[in-house]
Amino acid sequence: MEPVERVARHFQSELEQLKTRLLEMGGLAEEQVRLAVKALVDRDRDLVERVLHGDEPLNALHIEIDGRCFTLLALYQPMAVDLRAIVSAVKINTDLERVGDLAINIAEAARRYASQPPVKRLIDIPRMAALAQTMLRDALDAFVRRDIDLAQQVLNEDDKLDSLKTQIFRELLTYMLQDTGTIEPALDLILISRHLERIGDHATNVAEDVIFMVSARDVRHHADLQAG
Amino acid sequence: MEPVERVARHFQSELEQLKTRLLEMGGLAEEQVRLAVKALVDRDRDLVERVLHGDEPLNALHIEIDGRCFTLLALYQPMAVDLRAIVSAVKINTDLERVGDLAINIAEAARRYASQPPVKRLIDIPRMAALAQTMLRDALDAFVRRDIDLAQQVLNEDDKLDSLKTQIFRELLTYMLQDTGTIEPALDLILISRHLERIGDHATNVAEDVIFMVSARDVRHHADLQAG
Repeated sequence: MEPVERVARHFQSELEQLKTRLLEMGGLAEEQVRLAVKALVDRDRDLVERVLHGDEPLNALHIEIDGRCFTLLALYQPMAVDLRAIVSAVKINTDLERVGDLAINIAEAARRYASQPPVKRLIDIPRMAALAQTMLRDALDAFVRRDIDLAQQVLNEDDKLDSLKTQIFRELLTYMLQDTGTIEPALDLILISRHLERIGDHATNVAEDVIFMVSARDVRHHADLQAG
Repeated sequence: MEPVERVARHFQSELEQLKTRLLEMGGLAEEQVRLAVKALVDRDRDLVERVLHGDEPLNALHIEIDGRCFTLLALYQPMAVDLRAIVSAVKINTDLERVGDLAINIAEAARRYASQPPVKRLIDIPRMAALAQTMLRDALDAFVRRDIDLAQQVLNEDDKLDSLKTQIFRELLTYMLQDTGTIEPALDLILISRHLERIGDHATNVAEDVIFMVSARDVRHHADLQAG
């Protein structure tokens, strides 16, 4: 095997490892969200604590992935789609870390919520959570498979999340206006719905990165300017 | 001048231009936040509309800066602190775009707020806004000057923002519990305080990037692993 070919193969194998680690990180972030919402619904204080103390593997992986990206950029000086894939990985890594932070925020609100009488049976919040998790998983799959159609599908799902959020807000507002005793716990549910909306936003960020990585509009645009 | 030297000079001049554009973008984002909060305080619907329609220059600059970063990475294949500076610029660019989005969110809430009777004279929200804007400006200055101390100062300011947010929440909750007529507008003020908190979060993201760019802990850590 030629040295150049060996370097290229080594790069591709490192890139595959990077993708695997990003998927792992996505899995961990998604699981934290799932557990935080389960803790909310089940009013399970032990599970709340588990989520609150469960972000260390995510943080470690965040640092590791950032390091891998810099090493790949510095050692292999990749071009075109490979360059965009690694810069996208840096961004996606940040998005996934934020999803982990949002799971913590949900768990904190769930802890407060569990200390008050429940406002209502929770149906739409778990539905929002399931949708946000699916969007996140699909966006990461789209990244790994470089699948623009799947990325576009994620972007389309965002409207559903938005209308669920609005519906939740209106319903809770009605409760608050009817009974001031529900104001505090209803506020926590409203905040949780906003956190879930933001998890959806991170999924759409990832999906947008995938489209940019594959189609490279901005880079080409700039290359034109440079050549001109 | 040697060719290598000429390339190095050209790179440094491009890097300076990149920094200038990031500062411009920071200025635009900060101005949008300032105007959105002014529109809220003055109940100025015209100004609300100006903010809502004022994000195009920011979006254009976001695309341009992303393009510049990719071009610099592809053409010059920078190493060490220059590489970290450009990857940080990609991240900071994303943070600034989000700040612009949050200004829009604040303006939307300000529009709803202006259609209801005011809850109270607004003092702490403009204070939060001023603090978040200062943090953002300092974080960008720290990036341009590679100033770790200033970046650390930004991180320290975040606690003040957090305690202002908690204070605002408690005060508004009291209003809501006393008078259900304040629930809807108070909810908008709570959401605005959360948006301002997130602008502070973006400033701390930038500050963390600066510390990483200058100190390079993660990259060194990874380099050690590679060498071992």
